[in-house]
Amino acid sequence: MSALPGSGAFAAFCGQWNGAVDQALRELLPSPDTAPQRLHEAMHYALFPGGKRLRPMLVLLGCQAAGGDPGRALRAAAALECLHTYSLVHDDLPCMDDDDLRRGRPTCHKVYGDALALLAGDALLTLAFEGAASAGADATAELARAAGSLGMVGGQVEDLASEGDPQRHSLERVRWIHTRKTGALITAALLVGAHAAAGGAVPAAVLEPLRAYGDRVGLAFQIADDCLDLTGTAAELGKNPLADVALGKLTWPAMVGLDQSLATARDLAAEASALAVPITAAAAGWRQVPAPALDAARLLLQDVALYAVARRN
Amino acid sequence: MSALPGSGAFAAFCGQWNGAVDQALRELLPSPDTAPQRLHEAMHYALFPGGKRLRPMLVLLGCQAAGGDPGRALRAAAALECLHTYSLVHDDLPCMDDDDLRRGRPTCHKVYGDALALLAGDALLTLAFEGAASAGADATAELARAAGSLGMVGGQVEDLASEGDPQRHSLERVRWIHTRKTGALITAALLVGAHAAAGGAVPAAVLEPLRAYGDRVGLAFQIADDCLDLTGTAAELGKNPLADVALGKLTWPAMVGLDQSLATARDLAAEASALAVPITAAAAGWRQVPAPALDAARLLLQDVALYAVARRN
Repeated sequence: MSALPGSGAFAAFCGQWNGAVDQALRELLPSPDTAPQRLHEAMHYALFPGGKRLRPMLVLLGCQAAGGDPGRALRAAAALECLHTYSLVHDDLPCMDDDDLRRGRPTCHKVYGDALALLAGDALLTLAFEGAASAGADATAELARAAGSLGMVGGQVEDLASEGDPQRHSLERVRWIHTRKTGALITAALLVGAHAAAGGAVPAAVLEPLRAYGDRVGLAFQIADDCLDLTGTAAELGKNPLADVALGKLTWPAMVGLDQSLATARDLAAEASALAVPITAAAAGWRQVPAPALDAARLLLQDVALYAVARRN
Repeated sequence: MSALPGSGAFAAFCGQWNGAVDQALRELLPSPDTAPQRLHEAMHYALFPGGKRLRPMLVLLGCQAAGGDPGRALRAAAALECLHTYSLVHDDLPCMDDDDLRRGRPTCHKVYGDALALLAGDALLTLAFEGAASAGADATAELARAAGSLGMVGGQVEDLASEGDPQRHSLERVRWIHTRKTGALITAALLVGAHAAAGGAVPAAVLEPLRAYGDRVGLAFQIADDCLDLTGTAAELGKNPLADVALGKLTWPAMVGLDQSLATARDLAAEASALAVPITAAAAGWRQVPAPALDAARLLLQDVALYAVARRN
């Protein structure tokens, strides 16, 4: 992972937990020696080596922000990575974005064929809910709402529809799509982590500012991603730059330009950062956790908000 | 639904609950007016009008067999139908079985295109876990294990692999496939129902005989399905007969003939039927439910076992 902006707290957190997340993924996933071997190989191929593992890290952070030990949320963290990875595998299929490259390697269906890639995606999505169940029924329902037809899948449908429909491109529509296609799962990662901390019902006083934080970070993240497509190199992106432009995709800079997009992303990050105090204050009140334990979480929440807008792949 | 064999208890049960299951499905699913409309239309198209609704009925039966009110399990029942329907939508896609007809109508991708059918399937699978969460985290994990790479998806992978590999056809392999591709979800339906009854942990004394029952019913059901492909008419099947033969699919009668297959299905049904008494006895001991309430469940369990082998579509 390349250098991160801000305090470096989130980079250190990722470095600290990266090995444990990969280990949790290996424990959640059947080994490639287990029948059907090709299916499990395809699932491993899609998951390893990973990208930034951002969503699992946000699960662990959500857990810590709610006053829990991140180690309790590792299985749920692995679940979020499975869910994110399924969405990439299906998005890359020929009937969708028809991508040949992902993270600098041939996409799953290029290696294993369309049928097995489809089924590997289905199995990863299913496995995500087996993992999420470790954080309880509330976490599972939250994840399902975020990932389903009113969330990520709905956003993907509208994103595909927008490619062939430039007349209806608008800032409102790109916000609608980004909020669902990317933002919903980022928010859900934080909330699933909070549920994993609790082992029971989490009060709205904790969940709601965390949700507002996630919504802002998620949108900032996707706007920054849109900008990277314009400014990044193939090596930085792990895929061809200007891919969104080539597909006629509806992006934030396509509506308001690059400078205004970056300014909006920074504004969202600042709003998110300001929520770090209310989140951790509510958690401290709820769990009666000593303040220093939540000081670290507050700094991490602030740093992630900066990370979302300034990252490189 | 055509006439059913046996006592008629399960036919009456299905008639009693059919409307409530459809209502629960309509409550779990966003309406077709909700954005993205085409996606929600495609999900409704795949779900309505339904087939036998066997899996949701087994959820309600599992709930009653564990001493619960089936009305408590309706949302979980709808979840099982969503999961089953996703598997049909994905199986019908061009990269899989490439089917044009399902229940006598054009398949989902024939009407909505491959991309939307893929995403409608993804959304139905995701929604299934939102519904299953209503029966708790144990139910969710059980369903995920049954539906994933070690269950239904794994069975589908091996089923596809077997089409091009007749040299490796064997009775052992067809049992492996049927147990996972069909049996796992039928067993999970019953167990999810038992979890919905409990609102907490269900003792192994109830779960284990119910699991053994489901495994036998599920295998009997799939063997009978294989036989129907040989003996049924297009009108009875809602699809072309001899479709399995045309695809070179590995089926039970392809290994041991029609007569021996039907005999095995009957034997499995008899074994399942004999488990009705231990299941309901364990539930009575656990929940201190009056015996008459479980008498009805016992008769239903026995009748479903007969239904599994003698049904027509």
